[in-house]
Formats: sequence, C-alpha cells, structure tokens
Amino acid sequence: MIDVALPGTGGMMPLPDRGLSCLLLRIEGRMLLFDCGEGTQIGLKRLGTGFKPIDGIFLSHLHADHVSGLVGILLMLANSGREDPVRIFGPPGTSAVVAGQRLLARHLPYEAPVTELWPGESIDIAGVAVTCAQAQHSTYCLAYRVDLDRRPRFDADRARALGIPVHTWRTLQQGESVEHAGRVFQPDEVLGPPRRGLAVAYVTDTRPTDELARLARGVDLLVAEGTFGDPADQERALQTLHMTFAEAAGLAGRAGARQLLLTHFSPSLTDPLLYAQSARDVFPETILGYDGLTLTLRFDDE
Amino acid sequence: MIDVALPGTGGMMPLPDRGLSCLLLRIEGRMLLFDCGEGTQIGLKRLGTGFKPIDGIFLSHLHADHVSGLVGILLMLANSGREDPVRIFGPPGTSAVVAGQRLLARHLPYEAPVTELWPGESIDIAGVAVTCAQAQHSTYCLAYRVDLDRRPRFDADRARALGIPVHTWRTLQQGESVEHAGRVFQPDEVLGPPRRGLAVAYVTDTRPTDELARLARGVDLLVAEGTFGDPADQERALQTLHMTFAEAAGLAGRAGARQLLLTHFSPSLTDPLLYAQSARDVFPETILGYDGLTLTLRFDDE
Repeated sequence: MIDVALPGTGGMMPLPDRGLSCLLLRIEGRMLLFDCGEGTQIGLKRLGTGFKPIDGIFLSHLHADHVSGLVGILLMLANSGREDPVRIFGPPGTSAVVAGQRLLARHLPYEAPVTELWPGESIDIAGVAVTCAQAQHSTYCLAYRVDLDRRPRFDADRARALGIPVHTWRTLQQGESVEHAGRVFQPDEVLGPPRRGLAVAYVTDTRPTDELARLARGVDLLVAEGTFGDPADQERALQTLHMTFAEAAGLAGRAGARQLLLTHFSPSLTDPLLYAQSARDVFPETILGYDGLTLTLRFDDE
Repeated sequence: MIDVALPGTGGMMPLPDRGLSCLLLRIEGRMLLFDCGEGTQIGLKRLGTGFKPIDGIFLSHLHADHVSGLVGILLMLANSGREDPVRIFGPPGTSAVVAGQRLLARHLPYEAPVTELWPGESIDIAGVAVTCAQAQHSTYCLAYRVDLDRRPRFDADRARALGIPVHTWRTLQQGESVEHAGRVFQPDEVLGPPRRGLAVAYVTDTRPTDELARLARGVDLLVAEGTFGDPADQERALQTLHMTFAEAAGLAGRAGARQLLLTHFSPSLTDPLLYAQSARDVFPETILGYDGLTLTLRFDDE
C-alpha cells in the first residue's frame, strides 16, 4: 500500500490559496518527500499526517520553487525529535545548494547526507527502489519512479507438507533458503509466482519525452506537472519547457500508466477544473490535484 | 504618514493560519521590509498592498524563521518587473547567508547589495533614517528604528512680505538658501519651528534591555515581539531569550512609546487575545498583532 498526498499543487510561486507543488508518499510507515518549495512545511502541517518518518527528500531540480523550503523542513524535523538520518537527493549541484540552505540550519540533531544522482541511477530507501531519469527543462532536472515490490504468496499448506518448521517460514518468505533436518529448502519451493507491486512516477518541470514515458512504464500513478490547462497555452508550454494537461495525459497514455494525477499549476491557471476534459479526452483516468489531496494505492486484489 | 502592516505574526515556524513575523512599512510610496521568514511572500500577496516598491530588506538576525523567505521575495520582485536596486541589511554574517540563498536566485534583473550593520549604525533609505541597536538573543540580533522627519511649516505670508519669488520657495523649504535681487535669504527666515516627525521601532527576538528602550525612545509605534502571553511562561522567556507580553509592555513604557504592537507569537500561543490584559495592565496602548493587520501613523495635527 502507498499513501499519496499533495501538500501543494502550484508552480513558480506560492499563492495564498495554493502551495508550491510537491509529493509526499507514505509506504509502510515511512515517508518520502519529492520537492519542497517555500511553504511546503505549512502544507505538510495542514495535511495532518505527520512528517517525522520522512527518510528521503528528492529534489527534481535546483529552482527555488522546488527547493527553498528545504531548511524549513529540516528544522521542522529537528523540532519533531528526529534522530535518524534524513537523506537528500537531487541532480548534480545539489550539494552546494543544500550547503547554502544549511547556513540557516548548521546544527541538526540528525545526519542529512546529500547524494547527487545521475539519470538512470537507482537507490534503495524506505523499503522501495527510487530510480531517476532526465527531464527536459531549462536546467538539469530529474524525474523519479518509486517501486514497491510485492512478495510472492507463501504456500503454507505446501510448507507443512514438506515438513518445514513454522519458525523458519519468515526466512523463506524473505527469499532466503533454510536448512532443516539435513535438507536445504529453497524459497521457490514454497513461494507462489511473482506478483505485481506498486509504482509511482513523479514527473515535473519538463516537456513530455520518450525517456519519461519509459521511466513511468506501467506505473499505478503518474504524478505529472500540468502547468497549463488551456490548449491555447500550448506555445507557452513549449517556450517555458512545461506541459499542458493534454500533453501530460499523452505521456500517461504512452507510459501505459493506470492513473494520472495532475499538479504544478501555473499561477495564471486559477481554476484547473475548467480544463479537466482536455486531459480526459486523451487519458480518461486523469485526476486533478488540489492542495491536501490524498489517495491510497493498493496491491491488486488487496 | 507611515503605513504599517504585519504580513505575519508567528515565531519559530509558520503555521497553517499564522505566517512568520515580519513588518512592512510604506512611506510616501516606498516600502521597507523587516525580516522575511518562509512564507513572507504569501503574506505580502495576501495583504494586497503591492510589494514592488520595497527598497530595503532588513534582517534582525540570521535564524531561518527570519530569513529563509528571502529568495522568494527577491524572485517575486524580479517577476514584478523590479529594476531598481533592492538593498539588504543585517548583522555581520548576512553576506554569507544571502549568498547561500542566492544560489537559488543567481540572476536578478536588479542589483541586491548587502550591507552588514553594526549596532549604532544609521543609514538613509526611502526618505527615512534607519538606525540599529543590539538586541539580546542567542545569536547576534539587531533591533531597528525608522525616523521620518517632518519639514518645518513654510510661512508663505512672511516670504511674500520679504519679496522672495515663489519659484524659489521650494529651495528654501528644502533647507537651502536662495539669492534674489542681490540679497541672500536663509531658510530660517521663512520656516517655522522644528516639527515632530514619525518614528517606528522594530524589536524582535530579544530580552528587554536599556539599549532597546533608548533605541525606541518616544517612537510613535513600537513593534515588539511578545513570544509568550501567559505570565506563567516567564521562565521560558528567560531561557529562550524572548519576552512575555508584560515585558514588551514594560519596554514600551520605559521607551515612552506612544503605542505598542505585539507580534512574533510562539506556536504554543494559540490565542494571543487571552493575554492582552497582561500587557495593557503595564502599558495601556497595546495592540495585539494578527496576520494582515494594517494601521496608519500620521503626523500630529495632520
């Protein structure tokens, strides 16, 4: 299960009634935050879901509207009693920018190591794999994909029939072999076929590209920027290297995503709902984001 | 005339319903901003009074809740078409912190020079004099005083009687002498006695001290932190180097201020109004700040 929340949904600058866009994922009690512009800590508090379990903060790119709330998040975590490390990820250049932010948070009660990622890299954190790809923006920008694997079903009847003691089942379930009464049991003797996991992609501040469609292949949810709603803004989307709703919907279709969640609305886009149909005409399973939206992704048949 | 606004009134961290404390002054069309924590640009937008005329940003000290909105303000001014310089002032160390923030705003369409101030320094900006004094906090912290002078009244009857041509009156009014028909006229021949101007002091993140009472001597308005309302929090105020409402009121009294405006409320202080009386018992002319408060200071008899 993955809980998805949008603490904010705005692009470029925070507005009185729309925070800057970011994405919060909660996976089995741990959290990952994607982007943190000015005011993200306010959006997190308004959500009311807590934030202390944030293990990783992923920056898409080094523009202020995606980064300048970082020091606030770090200090908020400090005030919440956080002691475990909080890892920060972003494109090359992230270390220097974080160091600049940290001039206002020199001493934290936890470690906050920075890892600069190159497109294609993948890291394990909070029980998931996070992979990045290059987006197409005016500065180096990364899109992210989160994969939560699902363990194969454990066949208890078969395990009993084979005489495997119950206290060793957990080891087999975790994919390791077990020795008992002079015999070695392999996991595939008691585990069912592979099962589909859950995947989320976060794609913002970019034009739609093949690389991003590949990154988001078959995800349960594509969280994508739809900076412009009105199809008449197509030219602006091209010039500013952003997407219209219809373009984001096209990307969701090419990726074979199950659902699309639009966010990162231009300050000039006062009512995104007006243009929902322009996305749904292309990709019916489109959800329009709003500050405070939460939804839950569940494994198939769960 | 000075227009005073509080875009936010919170200390330590922004809350969903209370922005971080700062002070905006508008003086004859120009503006000065004192402190800019995360979210101050949101408070400014909510005020609706515009922000493009901000000529100076004064930082009291280099804690995140007073500084980390700076990059947002600078970018917002850039987006508003600002081209004239925006000067930034703060205690020693400000240059490095601003440089850290500017990693997210490397290119601005205007100059943004930084001046580090030592206690006692005074600078002229936007038609006023701004003087600073040292506050007593856990880091180097400055309090500020703004003085708007009022020109003496011009005695038109006397100027006519002396035969001074009308087109030279403005020069005399500005305090410069004028030569006409072989005679030199001095300003004091046509100007009335000195007149009281207007003064505002901004005192935050500090214990009450004699130095601050001197800085705020006779001001029309003392904008002061009242981090704690409940007199039972006196010990916390001492430990954290902040003030209770009653202490801020005592400072206003010692300074001989005309009015006190309380701000910078602790996140734990959910309803400052509950403790208004504890300030008014000490200094009756106490106003409780709230996000979006505006008031106007006028010259006497204006």
